[in-house]
Amino acid sequence: MKVSIIGSGNVAWHLAQVFETHPKVTVLEVYSRNLSHAEKLSCTLLCTQATDDLNFSKSKAEIFILAVSDDAIEAVSQELLLPEGAIIAHTSGSQPLSILEKLTYSKGVFYPLQTFSKDTKVDFETVTFCIEGESPEVAEKLTNLAHLISTYVYPVSSQQRATLHIAAVFACNFTNYLWGISQNILQENGASLGILQSLIQETTRKALTNHPFSVQTGPAIRGDAQVIQKHLESLKNHPDYRDIYLMMTDQIQKLNKN
Amino acid sequence: MKVSIIGSGNVAWHLAQVFETHPKVTVLEVYSRNLSHAEKLSCTLLCTQATDDLNFSKSKAEIFILAVSDDAIEAVSQELLLPEGAIIAHTSGSQPLSILEKLTYSKGVFYPLQTFSKDTKVDFETVTFCIEGESPEVAEKLTNLAHLISTYVYPVSSQQRATLHIAAVFACNFTNYLWGISQNILQENGASLGILQSLIQETTRKALTNHPFSVQTGPAIRGDAQVIQKHLESLKNHPDYRDIYLMMTDQIQKLNKN
Repeated sequence: MKVSIIGSGNVAWHLAQVFETHPKVTVLEVYSRNLSHAEKLSCTLLCTQATDDLNFSKSKAEIFILAVSDDAIEAVSQELLLPEGAIIAHTSGSQPLSILEKLTYSKGVFYPLQTFSKDTKVDFETVTFCIEGESPEVAEKLTNLAHLISTYVYPVSSQQRATLHIAAVFACNFTNYLWGISQNILQENGASLGILQSLIQETTRKALTNHPFSVQTGPAIRGDAQVIQKHLESLKNHPDYRDIYLMMTDQIQKLNKN
Repeated sequence: MKVSIIGSGNVAWHLAQVFETHPKVTVLEVYSRNLSHAEKLSCTLLCTQATDDLNFSKSKAEIFILAVSDDAIEAVSQELLLPEGAIIAHTSGSQPLSILEKLTYSKGVFYPLQTFSKDTKVDFETVTFCIEGESPEVAEKLTNLAHLISTYVYPVSSQQRATLHIAAVFACNFTNYLWGISQNILQENGASLGILQSLIQETTRKALTNHPFSVQTGPAIRGDAQVIQKHLESLKNHPDYRDIYLMMTDQIQKLNKN
């Protein structure tokens, strides 16, 4: 499969790297508005050309992966010139397929449900891919491409993807912030989050094998007013953390009533 | 080592089970205010007597693990009669060693930093034990006992344990609640938290190998107002979840300013 990648951010970077390792995929072009960014990525790949030109009408690629920021999808896609029969697929969790509706090419979504940082290698084998196509043929081609790099490939509609995205914000972005608070509290006392590693992993395991509300533990669900009071006092120098503590405790206590 | 366990809740239950598997430990007695609860536990153990009597003056046990709820520690401990030379250690994360100060026995803390549910088997090998003793001798005996069942045994003062406990509330109890929200949002749309498993595990891995704030991702840290607005609209039927979304987003955005 011949693929080109529009973008040079985290998603573009990681997808290009993993495609490169697969014998059945060739990354023909990498685009960035800033040519040097595209070159930085393409020089890690064997047969890939860097470009800052959105005219791909002479390209041999069959699938164009549009891995730019959500805000840029519409503008960039409207400047694109693709060869006949090509598929364009964006990689956004929060944008519907219809954001590409003005384009006359075959359209789809190729969304890797993962948190990407440039410095961290991604094990794509376990990444969940959410695929959507404007037709069964487009969905099939994108599914086949995703299956070359991952075991977990699902058809997911724009509406379902929006739900997944908001669920992921709670399950990952917000939990990560709580771990940051935890790390700060520990660091102020000469420890670090590592001491909680086993506890965090067991909490995760339990949440993934039960409804998390059914395995809720801690002072809030026990209604342990004395401990809650002690914790609020010790958070008096961190009003922000205190606000979160109060709101979460309040909501967790409602679980008992329901 | 001869041990007796005061209590028949989750912590008592799991400690009794794991001690039973170790050839060097014998659980002599299990106490519960409600004899039938103690019997239910003792009948899973080979050489253990159930009792509802706090007079242990004739017991051969050397270490008494006080695994009752935080609120009950003071009252129960003051009724205890122990044999000469015995050590009494409570298992609470939030109570200081000094809660036992009125007792004339050797006193300590034997706190397993883990979330216990009765139905879930615990792999104690990876559980962090926080040990405190009123003397180095007591600390050593409790440390030795903990090392029979776990690799991770640390001396932790009452002040440090209080910090650990509050950090654990953020890192585990509150994150679990967020996973519950996530599960509910997904269930309303015919999915379940399992679809986020790989993302959750990768988020955890990154948070444990970096300062979580330095690997924060998502619409809040990107300042993606359009996506945040969309999410808030889709949460309009869940005012509680919406409140958390707003507060977390607000605080995460402050990370950019600091």
